[in-house]
Amino acid sequence: MPAITFDIATADQATLADIHESLHAEHQALIATGLTLDLTRGKPSPEQLDLSAGLLALPAPGDHYAADGTDCRNYGGLTGIREIRELWGEIFEVPAGQIIESGNSSLALMHDCLTHFTLAGTSVDTEPWGRTAGGAAVLCPVPGYDRHFTILEGLGIRMISVPMRADGPDMTVVRRLVAGDESIKGIWTMPSYSNPTGALCSTEVARALAEMPTAAADFRILWDNAYAVHHLTDEEPTVPDILSLCAAAGNPDRVVIFGSTSKITNAGAGLSFFGGSPHNVAWLQRYLFRRTIGPDKVNELRHFRFLPDVDSVRALMRRHREVIAPKFAAVLEILDTRLTGTGTAEWTTPTGGYFISLDVVPGTASRVVELAKQAGIALTPAGATFPYGNDPDDRNIRIAPTFPSLADVAAATEGLALCVLLAAVEQRRGATVSG
Amino acid sequence: MPAITFDIATADQATLADIHESLHAEHQALIATGLTLDLTRGKPSPEQLDLSAGLLALPAPGDHYAADGTDCRNYGGLTGIREIRELWGEIFEVPAGQIIESGNSSLALMHDCLTHFTLAGTSVDTEPWGRTAGGAAVLCPVPGYDRHFTILEGLGIRMISVPMRADGPDMTVVRRLVAGDESIKGIWTMPSYSNPTGALCSTEVARALAEMPTAAADFRILWDNAYAVHHLTDEEPTVPDILSLCAAAGNPDRVVIFGSTSKITNAGAGLSFFGGSPHNVAWLQRYLFRRTIGPDKVNELRHFRFLPDVDSVRALMRRHREVIAPKFAAVLEILDTRLTGTGTAEWTTPTGGYFISLDVVPGTASRVVELAKQAGIALTPAGATFPYGNDPDDRNIRIAPTFPSLADVAAATEGLALCVLLAAVEQRRGATVSG
Repeated sequence: MPAITFDIATADQATLADIHESLHAEHQALIATGLTLDLTRGKPSPEQLDLSAGLLALPAPGDHYAADGTDCRNYGGLTGIREIRELWGEIFEVPAGQIIESGNSSLALMHDCLTHFTLAGTSVDTEPWGRTAGGAAVLCPVPGYDRHFTILEGLGIRMISVPMRADGPDMTVVRRLVAGDESIKGIWTMPSYSNPTGALCSTEVARALAEMPTAAADFRILWDNAYAVHHLTDEEPTVPDILSLCAAAGNPDRVVIFGSTSKITNAGAGLSFFGGSPHNVAWLQRYLFRRTIGPDKVNELRHFRFLPDVDSVRALMRRHREVIAPKFAAVLEILDTRLTGTGTAEWTTPTGGYFISLDVVPGTASRVVELAKQAGIALTPAGATFPYGNDPDDRNIRIAPTFPSLADVAAATEGLALCVLLAAVEQRRGATVSG
Repeated sequence: MPAITFDIATADQATLADIHESLHAEHQALIATGLTLDLTRGKPSPEQLDLSAGLLALPAPGDHYAADGTDCRNYGGLTGIREIRELWGEIFEVPAGQIIESGNSSLALMHDCLTHFTLAGTSVDTEPWGRTAGGAAVLCPVPGYDRHFTILEGLGIRMISVPMRADGPDMTVVRRLVAGDESIKGIWTMPSYSNPTGALCSTEVARALAEMPTAAADFRILWDNAYAVHHLTDEEPTVPDILSLCAAAGNPDRVVIFGSTSKITNAGAGLSFFGGSPHNVAWLQRYLFRRTIGPDKVNELRHFRFLPDVDSVRALMRRHREVIAPKFAAVLEILDTRLTGTGTAEWTTPTGGYFISLDVVPGTASRVVELAKQAGIALTPAGATFPYGNDPDDRNIRIAPTFPSLADVAAATEGLALCVLLAAVEQRRGATVSG
């Protein structure tokens, strides 16, 4: 459809009525085409998974020994084989002796760490978070990752939203909160290509997190480095070395680091990692020992055979970029064509990661999602990027372009842009029109 | 060495002094040979793992779809692929819709279930176990599996020992305890070839567990079916169908079932399972959702390609038996030759599973372990088979014959038998002699 040119803030009611009619007709026509599209899924496409097809025949019969002679097939080795810790320690900026591989899901490691914090505390010398007067709380930069919020909600940990900025959490707000309230026990941070805004945490913000005075002695930065190597441009920035920053600040135990291969190899069949200070690594091992005899070392060996060094990881990620960068470009181009200048939306232009964050006219995000659903386009529920699923401004929508085909991404984004405009005009006219 | 013939109960002090001197000399000679043997490890031998060598090249590039078209490489599918649930549901006597595959460790599933019971309760309508007045307790048949006890101790759940008998837990004791004390929330049961005694739970005992009145409405049988298909003889008994027994008794939610492929395929790289009533399966899914996007479905598919039906599983287990049955036979023959008639020990003759349970003269198990250690033979610490590592009679020792070679198993058992005799004579003479 041709782009409709107007500015929502200045258009008069007569113009709005015309535009409304036109957009409504376009929406009805879209519904009639019977689309089934999905922009909700932050997961790799089959083409991306095909890049790791070789994994499925590895490590091969007879190839089951780690470099130190460990039989990877058998029980044992709570922290993972040495070579996988060395390689992925380099990628996540953690010494090999301070990184643990465990399971196929870094989310599970986050869940378990927070469970142990709640039940038993961050060390043998501190109280469990669960016994905090008034309830422990964790700061949640917003918009953020819904699964982070789900873990906290499940454990009864209060969530306090803080603004997410282009260089990380808003440190003016964060500093003030953590200095004055000892029930605030932690903060989520996604340092590289944060979900959903794509923000990169600056060294200044990372240093401030490491150095800031906190009323809680057992404060933890929950450093979810999910997109460490997931670049969309030739610039391949490194993440601030938070472990060293914390150590230099005299707070070596303040950060716990999470990462995985989930969006590098096979999303559901990869490796996940925990990194931290020697204290924090010993702390986690105490709980891992109670839970398991050890991780799947065959999968560690399989991954090490497929990706034996940092260069091979970076090369693989560039091939991912070739598949997904055009999808991001298509979304951004369509949003620009249909929405720029209309005053109905702002969005991020990420240089990596898996998402585009779209802010629509306040109060219309739910309506946009509803209108899109009517047209067969699934969007992440409005509010999902906020604690308790509640976006106070009903404004943010997360776009996940990686999984659908390029054609589907484009078609879905065309529909989405239409719904953004329609919801904005409906609101300005003070009425909604039933689809 | 030739067997020494005496009866510890009736030998006079002069005879005991002679025997003591002879055994001490034998022990010193054994120390001088500089053995390094290990009977502690309840894990498969490399020869057993070789039986599943084919797994390491599966599922093969391009073979990544489950029967229903699910791409096993990607995220999702919280409960596992249908075909793996059907197959292993048949083995664990659970309908496919009521079994969940999750991760490489059934111990982890037990840990997580008990953690959720403690933090959140067995349903939305019940209090968390952690809020039980006086502290929740779980019955532990002894001797039992140390890792079960470690989980409970870590969660602060009290452990109450109950005797393990040849047909399962001593139901006279169990019935009395659970009827009168609502803080008693569960009981561990290993129905097939219990660790370490090898006992098989009879249908009568299973029915009694299902039917018995419990003061706690949220009582759970923790049914760890670790050795469901791990037979050592031609008799291949099936385990009582506890799920049906509980349903028939009007207590459908009373049992939670655990199992794994750990000692079937690769011990550290297998599949693990949770089974239960529809309520219990929905209950667990609520917590799994908070923790993970899904299990490693590629490993599920890999296992399904390697073991596509129950017959292939049973055939594989018979090959395991060929490897390990001679090791069990060697241990039993040596114990019989050296210890029968001496009054110094009793032991089990398991028809399956991974262990032999040895009861020595009360008060000497720790000394036996110490004497064996002096001779370079590692034994599971005395007391490990009891809650809190405390065997009140200092009597039980767990023998794990599967991992060492046949020659090493025989040599270690010879040494062990010597130490049993020496410790017994030391005790009867009222003195210990330093090695």
